[in-house]
Amino acid sequence: MELLEIEIKAYCEDGTAAETRIMELGGVFIEARREEDIYFNHPCRDFRITDEALRLRGVGGSTVLTYKGPKLGGRSKTRVEQEADIPDRAAVKAILTSLGFVESGRVAKERKLYHLHDVEICLDRVEGLGLFIELEKKDTDREKVEAVLFSLAEELGLTRFERRSYLELILDAAPL
Amino acid sequence: MELLEIEIKAYCEDGTAAETRIMELGGVFIEARREEDIYFNHPCRDFRITDEALRLRGVGGSTVLTYKGPKLGGRSKTRVEQEADIPDRAAVKAILTSLGFVESGRVAKERKLYHLHDVEICLDRVEGLGLFIELEKKDTDREKVEAVLFSLAEELGLTRFERRSYLELILDAAPL
Repeated sequence: MELLEIEIKAYCEDGTAAETRIMELGGVFIEARREEDIYFNHPCRDFRITDEALRLRGVGGSTVLTYKGPKLGGRSKTRVEQEADIPDRAAVKAILTSLGFVESGRVAKERKLYHLHDVEICLDRVEGLGLFIELEKKDTDREKVEAVLFSLAEELGLTRFERRSYLELILDAAPL
Repeated sequence: MELLEIEIKAYCEDGTAAETRIMELGGVFIEARREEDIYFNHPCRDFRITDEALRLRGVGGSTVLTYKGPKLGGRSKTRVEQEADIPDRAAVKAILTSLGFVESGRVAKERKLYHLHDVEICLDRVEGLGLFIELEKKDTDREKVEAVLFSLAEELGLTRFERRSYLELILDAAPL
């Protein structure tokens, strides 16, 4: 069975309180990093309609190319995700452009990453959007992991969930 | 100005004689290697018509993704070429497949590479096609380089030139 990215996201009102609660629950701080993402739309299908994504993510000096399939239903944001390390970001960007992929938007954020048991917790300060918490686990069993993630969200006091991606939120907020 | 891949290709009747002649002219043997290429067609334009190419080339343990633009005219095979190193071949192949790229053919060859001044000479034994010599130089001035390459071809005794790619030759030879 294919590995799925099972993820829920919520607005975070108070970052300091959230961090304290993560540590109380046994979370381990992993790192803080800046992520700069460029999203591309497909030359002949509209990813806003097909609910797919193609992203070049720069973190420090390294870059990852990621394809995300459409959300698979359920209460979480669960998708097939395929990733490839890219040593030369500019070269891959040039090839994508030649193939007709068009830049559709950029997302930049300061991400604090925690591990709590086998869940990744991201405290994200997204430029232009504000503060969010994402809870994520890669697994094949969506329903089992959804129960774990929503239970953890409750322990963290999260209530305002958001199924749209950061890119969708930025594009929805942009003046036409 | 963009760097062009300026290349001519000819059938080679006698590999041993060609190698001797390359050395007599001052050529330096660089390496022998096996190259295994997978070509992809585009999800919404036909590269056989647009004369473009997208290729994953495996050489030893490493992989390069290459986009080639349409031939730019002249007597040579001159194209814009964009290349990116790919550490994880399977991951990029999976992403291309998800994006709708379809495998269109494979080319495998044993390549002997020589340098003669600033020209790359490839003596290629291509599976299913036979023996060829390619003369190649990356430059911005197509006409100047064409003159150099055809002059060198004459010194190597090459007479039967071929503008089709190995992939085109294989597809043209395949039973429908």
